[in-house]
Amino acid sequence: MLDYFFNPKSVAIIGASSNINKGGYHIIKNVTAGFPGKIYPVNKSYKEILGLPCYPDVASIPGNVDLAIYFIPSKELPHTVNECAKKGVKGIIIESGGFNEAGEEGKILQKRALENAAKAGIRLWGPNCMGYIDANKTYVFSFINSLVWPDILRGGNVGMIVQSGMLSAGFLLHALQEGVMGVSKACSIGNKCDIDENDILEYMIKDTDTEVIACYLESLVDGRRFLNLAKKTNKPIIVLLGGRSVQGAKAAQSHTASLSGNYKIASAAFRQAGIIEVFDPAELTDMARAFSKKMPYHPHPEKGAAILTFSGGAGTITTDLMDDCGLELAKLSDKTLDSIAELFPPWNKPDHPLDLWIAIEQHGFEKVFRRSLNAVFNDPAVDSIIFHTYATPFIGKEFFEELAALIKKHEKPVVLWIEGRKDFAELLRGMAENAGLPAYREMGRCVTVLKGLKQHFTKKPLN
Amino acid sequence: MLDYFFNPKSVAIIGASSNINKGGYHIIKNVTAGFPGKIYPVNKSYKEILGLPCYPDVASIPGNVDLAIYFIPSKELPHTVNECAKKGVKGIIIESGGFNEAGEEGKILQKRALENAAKAGIRLWGPNCMGYIDANKTYVFSFINSLVWPDILRGGNVGMIVQSGMLSAGFLLHALQEGVMGVSKACSIGNKCDIDENDILEYMIKDTDTEVIACYLESLVDGRRFLNLAKKTNKPIIVLLGGRSVQGAKAAQSHTASLSGNYKIASAAFRQAGIIEVFDPAELTDMARAFSKKMPYHPHPEKGAAILTFSGGAGTITTDLMDDCGLELAKLSDKTLDSIAELFPPWNKPDHPLDLWIAIEQHGFEKVFRRSLNAVFNDPAVDSIIFHTYATPFIGKEFFEELAALIKKHEKPVVLWIEGRKDFAELLRGMAENAGLPAYREMGRCVTVLKGLKQHFTKKPLN
Repeated sequence: MLDYFFNPKSVAIIGASSNINKGGYHIIKNVTAGFPGKIYPVNKSYKEILGLPCYPDVASIPGNVDLAIYFIPSKELPHTVNECAKKGVKGIIIESGGFNEAGEEGKILQKRALENAAKAGIRLWGPNCMGYIDANKTYVFSFINSLVWPDILRGGNVGMIVQSGMLSAGFLLHALQEGVMGVSKACSIGNKCDIDENDILEYMIKDTDTEVIACYLESLVDGRRFLNLAKKTNKPIIVLLGGRSVQGAKAAQSHTASLSGNYKIASAAFRQAGIIEVFDPAELTDMARAFSKKMPYHPHPEKGAAILTFSGGAGTITTDLMDDCGLELAKLSDKTLDSIAELFPPWNKPDHPLDLWIAIEQHGFEKVFRRSLNAVFNDPAVDSIIFHTYATPFIGKEFFEELAALIKKHEKPVVLWIEGRKDFAELLRGMAENAGLPAYREMGRCVTVLKGLKQHFTKKPLN
Repeated sequence: MLDYFFNPKSVAIIGASSNINKGGYHIIKNVTAGFPGKIYPVNKSYKEILGLPCYPDVASIPGNVDLAIYFIPSKELPHTVNECAKKGVKGIIIESGGFNEAGEEGKILQKRALENAAKAGIRLWGPNCMGYIDANKTYVFSFINSLVWPDILRGGNVGMIVQSGMLSAGFLLHALQEGVMGVSKACSIGNKCDIDENDILEYMIKDTDTEVIACYLESLVDGRRFLNLAKKTNKPIIVLLGGRSVQGAKAAQSHTASLSGNYKIASAAFRQAGIIEVFDPAELTDMARAFSKKMPYHPHPEKGAAILTFSGGAGTITTDLMDDCGLELAKLSDKTLDSIAELFPPWNKPDHPLDLWIAIEQHGFEKVFRRSLNAVFNDPAVDSIIFHTYATPFIGKEFFEELAALIKKHEKPVVLWIEGRKDFAELLRGMAENAGLPAYREMGRCVTVLKGLKQHFTKKPLN
């Protein structure tokens, strides 16, 4: 299902252009850059675009067309759908605006296009959307600026479903720009006249490329189906809802011409279904990034998180933030504390949160981090770890890879906060992420992320 | 008061060292790099350090000594205080640990040192602290790594009071590393055996260099005095409290050997006194940065914030987040909306939040931003503006400077979210900040910051 959208053999680009100032240029530029199948530009004004023969209409295309990308004015859509039907096109991604979101005339156009498509068995994606990107296959079926994007595409296991045009570009940039999270498919679903979040969600749940699903939704077309899909999968589903408030719902409505549901009911039902709710776009991508590492986690009501830090203050604040969201501090055993006591001066016995600074001063970062991480991994009261590190040249790739191995061995997740000089902190953060560890620059984000991980694995245990 | 700490003519460094692996090296390196007064290294093991004659003890120093920085083992302190008394030293910054935070023996040492100092009228700062930095004067009276720091010092109007050793370095880095916020004085106050947050707060309130005060506190030595000081000043005071939760208080206690107060009472009293409370170190510096711009603001119960965005979804999420914290969306007048309607296609009348994308596509960023910003500045229902911009090369320094001028003219603050490619977004953000506009990379932070600004100016109106 939907394979003609995600695995087409041939694509027609209706509204392709040679003019770099037009979206139709960027679509064909993006498609030709990464799609190995047949590409048919359609535009009356050109004989050729980017070296490809250009056709005046869909009917003139010589070969089969699985998928059409539509980027011409809205009024042509109903007719074009009929043309596509004759040609045997199976799906159309409508990236133009001017439909339900654009007054009565637009609504009529959307309705007629939908009727024509239904008769022909064609599925419509959009309209008023940015299409999709498959970063593993390097398909960019979107009018996003072809000059800016290609070099930051990064394949991975996070699937995104975004019901907003520009914001989907923003999400993607946020996800990709750090160079630490890879995306499987990022789908901008716009007005959802036919293909909606449930269709994409169902596809992504089956899609072996996608292991984490992150959504921005301003409405639920069929909330029950969404929840049932979520309940049946162990893939983490993270949702940012737009239009939670009365004023926000009004804003969302004007934007995508969709109705917002009852937020409180939706939120509670999401929780029940094991869906993770977030409240800011950056939180959405940060949370998805944590899940994308596939760290094992067995949260236990009588266990808790260990905090390792270089700063007593940071340990205190983290403890407060954990308390705010109901995360427990692990009760470290005397055995654990005793096992690292020799790193500390006699008058400063280690306590929890573990403020390691005084030990680091005496024994260096690497030794103290190794010893204390090992100690807390081995403590049966610890089910997860928040690890603060200063951006120091004394740890690096190898250290993070060892830490990732410990996570797998002990089946306890680690979330990192890296503080220090920006340039160096970002370097270390990249090393940590590439080794499989989620790392953040804001202390509080570690707590939010651990809360999300805990919520998921409590509902959907590993075994 | 306390001028001998902040404006000494001469400084003795007890525990100065030539060994780059010792804090005593970094102290003297830091002090000599920026302090124009007399500098006296004190250490029995050296005749000379960094070209300066080194003295075996305080008594041997030939000239007057206003301030001493103490960085030798704790057990020498009571005796050294007496030595300093004979020499006429007025203040001692004790950066060593090993006192109240270090068991019974340390407690006795701290008590004895304090008694000796009281007899001599010497004020003690610390112990167990990182000293202070005056970035305007380029005084770095701290053992922070002299190799890493000097090139990022940036003078400005934000004063910081931090009751935590390593975290104060973290705060400072966070504040300075973006190159967009300047610091007047950053004070790490440690165990607060004598000089406490109130003394520094009082000094900063009078200090003409300091216009915004940001604190991390794990205890309040005299809550009433703190509140009274806060009530009497119009300078914004932002506080992150450590140890709000029972577990956090326990953590704080083990760290600085101070008692945590009752959080709920403190929080309510803070609010009453017009103090802004924040919950994460990054939020503290982000909030301070917003206040440091000194944007005028007249919050009005019947007015609200205008949202200008390039993404309907971002407008929706921002509206939701505003609702979460009680910020009102401005009711834009028909006149305002009509005045920019010509930028939009006929089927897409502008609505609030103002999703400008479709207008930008037709008329470009600069024109649409200019016109719509002017429109909302002139709307009497608008008392503040949240402005989302994509990182586009079509706006820059001049645009931000004009915007800063509009803020002054209309006395309405603007908070920016800049989204897009990281490199370019950070470039634009620097331009915006240097023009006097607070700009953030997380959408939600704009809302938090506007809430803080509103809280302050509601309690402490401009006129």
